[in-house]
Amino acid sequence: MADQYAQSHEDSGPPPTPSIRWDEPPEGPVLVLLDQTRLPAEEVELVCTDAPALVQAIRTLAVRGAPLLGIAGAYGVALAAVRGFDVDEAAEALATARPTAVNLERGVRRAQAAYRSAVEGGADQQQAAASALAEARALHEEDAEASRRMAQNGLAFLDELQPGGGHRLLTHCNTGALVSGGEGTAFAVALAAHREGQLRRLWVDETRPLLQGARLTAYEAARSGMAYTLLTDNAAGSLFAAGEVDAVLIGADRIVADGSVANKVGSYPLAVLARYHHVPFIVVAPVTTVDPDTPDGASIEVEQRAGQEVTEFTAPQVPVTGAEPGGGIPVAPLGTQAYNPAFDVTPPELVTAIVTEHGVVSPVTAEGLAQLCARSRQVTIS
Amino acid sequence: MADQYAQSHEDSGPPPTPSIRWDEPPEGPVLVLLDQTRLPAEEVELVCTDAPALVQAIRTLAVRGAPLLGIAGAYGVALAAVRGFDVDEAAEALATARPTAVNLERGVRRAQAAYRSAVEGGADQQQAAASALAEARALHEEDAEASRRMAQNGLAFLDELQPGGGHRLLTHCNTGALVSGGEGTAFAVALAAHREGQLRRLWVDETRPLLQGARLTAYEAARSGMAYTLLTDNAAGSLFAAGEVDAVLIGADRIVADGSVANKVGSYPLAVLARYHHVPFIVVAPVTTVDPDTPDGASIEVEQRAGQEVTEFTAPQVPVTGAEPGGGIPVAPLGTQAYNPAFDVTPPELVTAIVTEHGVVSPVTAEGLAQLCARSRQVTIS
Repeated sequence: MADQYAQSHEDSGPPPTPSIRWDEPPEGPVLVLLDQTRLPAEEVELVCTDAPALVQAIRTLAVRGAPLLGIAGAYGVALAAVRGFDVDEAAEALATARPTAVNLERGVRRAQAAYRSAVEGGADQQQAAASALAEARALHEEDAEASRRMAQNGLAFLDELQPGGGHRLLTHCNTGALVSGGEGTAFAVALAAHREGQLRRLWVDETRPLLQGARLTAYEAARSGMAYTLLTDNAAGSLFAAGEVDAVLIGADRIVADGSVANKVGSYPLAVLARYHHVPFIVVAPVTTVDPDTPDGASIEVEQRAGQEVTEFTAPQVPVTGAEPGGGIPVAPLGTQAYNPAFDVTPPELVTAIVTEHGVVSPVTAEGLAQLCARSRQVTIS
Repeated sequence: MADQYAQSHEDSGPPPTPSIRWDEPPEGPVLVLLDQTRLPAEEVELVCTDAPALVQAIRTLAVRGAPLLGIAGAYGVALAAVRGFDVDEAAEALATARPTAVNLERGVRRAQAAYRSAVEGGADQQQAAASALAEARALHEEDAEASRRMAQNGLAFLDELQPGGGHRLLTHCNTGALVSGGEGTAFAVALAAHREGQLRRLWVDETRPLLQGARLTAYEAARSGMAYTLLTDNAAGSLFAAGEVDAVLIGADRIVADGSVANKVGSYPLAVLARYHHVPFIVVAPVTTVDPDTPDGASIEVEQRAGQEVTEFTAPQVPVTGAEPGGGIPVAPLGTQAYNPAFDVTPPELVTAIVTEHGVVSPVTAEGLAQLCARSRQVTIS
């Protein structure tokens, strides 16, 4: 059933190719994804005509990033409904395509619930499908709106810290439009500063082992026309020592009740360096990232990923001769064991502020975070 | 005149192939180098029959590492003398093969001086050549002896810090037999601990951008049979946070008068992490690394290397199709600017100890360092 085809946008220039879009060509509705495994070498769109195609795109990381996966999952359910496939079967396959991505299942269930509710309310198949699509579109727009508000709140906080602008910001991993229905989290703040003429430079950590900084953040920075410079993760220390960093801006995979922040491995060393050099360390994330049921950083289970990500170099867009069975070019002796945690945990005392779409928590305390979450629920309910 | 040929030792197993050796087959004396550009994929020896072949090996980084370059330079002069070439011409070409490697020129000049002194003393060509070779062999043996003493002093210091052994050591870059006439600097300490049954684990930073840790230190660790684990540089923070590191051991490119240490980029962030986690940060280097004429860390000029080392991935041992003119696989958008300092500077207050072949300086102060250097000169003169 899987049906994907590629459209090349290599020479399209601005405006940038959206990471996800619903399209309705004469042949019928489709979900169009920017294939992130091909970046930055080329911009290629994957067109999914059914849920199995989307499941495959999720598994191969053609589409990735927690908020974007939620949106993709919701659209996937709508796609199955609109095209007349079994909605519950599609939802099940999508929700389990990547078991650790909680946003994915949330997005899937939301569209599925809208579909079921319509059916139970007496709607016909077409009307119920329209409900699922409307829910996916609502989630997409909510996420874009959250990005806009995080960018506003983050920039206001930066301007408070450093009136007069000219910000030199350091970021890690990829937190822009490629992971979001809008312009992202930490990257959206840098982009807002750039648009206001307030960004002097974005320092981009390459983010080993998968190089999301070099491959994706540099791509987004280049597309936006901002001044940016790439560096190896271990060169950040030299920048701090030289006084070249005004603030660190990162996203978050999970923020737990005490304010501890789980994010891409390499975030914690930046937090320690930032503290040593009296540089603000700012986390930008939507309130949906807050997990009040996990009490503290020590309770977060850290995912250990395959050592091959470290012992081999993989560049999916370039064919390699002499590659090993693992698919990459070996850079360490065969049999080398690697320690490869996917993320690390930064304790609240090293975090200057958590910026959300509903406001900023600074200093970061369990109480401050709980109040913000309560406020955000009131806003959502009202 | 260049004449190199390769001998494969891929399946030789222990004992390890020496990084440099003088050999006298029936065809005449040669200098045999382990080609470091082919590691860890294969062990291939380069056989140099004259100085131009050695110059080429130095330029292509087949032989590298400050102490080892000094030894290679001295042997190169001896090779020219023994084979009847113009010694001064060979010395000039060797001394300038890599202009920044001060040890290279020192080694060259030392063998050249021995040759000239013999000639001036009435020796014939053969006797003078023997003097140059004896000087190269003396330098080689001195360096090996310095390694042995650094290893002893370093291990004794570790055992003082953590009686009972079971050391879990973290290291950065490559500091073993591949850069030395002996077993190296920081790595030699870990190796001594391993031989005493006192090494629980060596954590090996991959050391971006050139991956000397993944390629070379992992290779040396595997050859020695020690327990080792590779990690991305940015994962070290997680190890510190988990209490998995008992001490950091690194080498040094230069130690200046106030005790500031210039070493491979990524050393300084480790020093900050080590301090934050109350873990000893130990520098292991021969006294020849101390530069008393540079007063402090701020006076050290930091070499900025080509951005392509960061924006492209290069694996010399594997042929790649689709490679860019820079020779590597692009990992960032074309035109991306990179910040790529070759090393960073760690201030003395973050260094727990400097271990040399003549003793240990701890705490690290300008006075302590000056006293150790004075003592080493007395030892050398006596």
